[in-house]
Amino acid sequence: TIADTAEALLAEMAREAAGGHPLAGRRVIVTAGGTVERIDPVRYITNDSSGKMGIAIAEAARDLGADVTLIAARVTAELPAGVEVVRVESAEDMLRAVMERFDEADVVVKAAAVADYRPAVRRTSKMKKKEDRLTLELEKTPDILAEAGRRKTKQLLIGFAAETDDLEANAMDKLRRKNCDLIVANDVTAPGAGFDVDTNAVSVFDAAGRTAEWKVMPKREIGLRLMRLAAERLADREAEAP
Amino acid sequence: TIADTAEALLAEMAREAAGGHPLAGRRVIVTAGGTVERIDPVRYITNDSSGKMGIAIAEAARDLGADVTLIAARVTAELPAGVEVVRVESAEDMLRAVMERFDEADVVVKAAAVADYRPAVRRTSKMKKKEDRLTLELEKTPDILAEAGRRKTKQLLIGFAAETDDLEANAMDKLRRKNCDLIVANDVTAPGAGFDVDTNAVSVFDAAGRTAEWKVMPKREIGLRLMRLAAERLADREAEAP
Repeated sequence: TIADTAEALLAEMAREAAGGHPLAGRRVIVTAGGTVERIDPVRYITNDSSGKMGIAIAEAARDLGADVTLIAARVTAELPAGVEVVRVESAEDMLRAVMERFDEADVVVKAAAVADYRPAVRRTSKMKKKEDRLTLELEKTPDILAEAGRRKTKQLLIGFAAETDDLEANAMDKLRRKNCDLIVANDVTAPGAGFDVDTNAVSVFDAAGRTAEWKVMPKREIGLRLMRLAAERLADREAEAP
Repeated sequence: TIADTAEALLAEMAREAAGGHPLAGRRVIVTAGGTVERIDPVRYITNDSSGKMGIAIAEAARDLGADVTLIAARVTAELPAGVEVVRVESAEDMLRAVMERFDEADVVVKAAAVADYRPAVRRTSKMKKKEDRLTLELEKTPDILAEAGRRKTKQLLIGFAAETDDLEANAMDKLRRKNCDLIVANDVTAPGAGFDVDTNAVSVFDAAGRTAEWKVMPKREIGLRLMRLAAERLADREAEAP
């Protein structure tokens, strides 16, 4: 009948579209930027993250057809169009924003530079400039990647490791401890890699070891390769599923 | 002679030009933004300053004919054209940049939000995320305004005070302690005043007390009023000089 033919045609078109959109129908969460951990109403601890790598990944996932949520802390790069953007400040805020959306996600990429430590006490009024020396007590922030690793079911979990030495050993150790599926490791001291530049050079590790090495290239290109790799891994899992 | 007439004409033109340019021939230094005090190669302490107030003052001084140097720490607002911009990071860097140019200046405006405290030890490698709690020892940063107050000769020195209560008493106390000529006091808790907004509401104090009160208005307008006031004060001094 005409109805059957039309239905088959629509399905064929959808398959074809998915060829260019390997993440069509997937929900991707990406965290980006540096978290802000307040000392008092005006002062805070933060870091040099520009948010560029995370934003590039979110844009790549969008272009590959995914439904993307970008959870952005302090960023200096421009936020992308066509993705849901959730602004957060601290590690605590970011954890909450990720966990509220976690169960529905297919891919979770933790590209943010989350503060490891925050002031143990947040003052509600401005510190007064009296004493010559002050002691600031710091406590650990929640470990978003480890929390995601404990909670994950179907999600492909991707973490980052910024290392200055023993790249492979540190990346593999992090992958196991955090229960990640992929770790993207970059040497922040290498030229053309790291914070606030438009290029990066990374190695990607999975449970079996190094699975890809992408020499210095635009963050945009790394984002696309990483999201294509994610799409393949999701497809492989579904092919293997009973 | 024709030469005499031409000379008189040029002098008259210069005086006329100076009418619309009351800061013509004056050197103005403005500091702006929030300083960055590093904990280790990636982490730092900073504050919410956008740099907008200092940038507005630098632009106003430029438009009133001054030769302007803007010494800018971390800013989120756009840097102005037509002024010399010196980028700095820490309070220490900013002090050095101000002092190198201080003797030639006629007006020095300290609009930057300089960190009061910085880590006493700056680590050269990234802190490792091992201990549950850490103690960060902080020490006082150099007091740029007080240093400028000690060194000043002819300079008109303008400081800022961001107060939450006892505006007048705190501003007058700061003016005396720092040997300033003018203190611009704003209540950072008032609506339409403070960080990262385009308006401000301030009172200006000199040694005799409150000399001006400017209700909520664009920072640009506050910059112009402040720089016109500075031009008047410089002219008054020269009129009084023996």
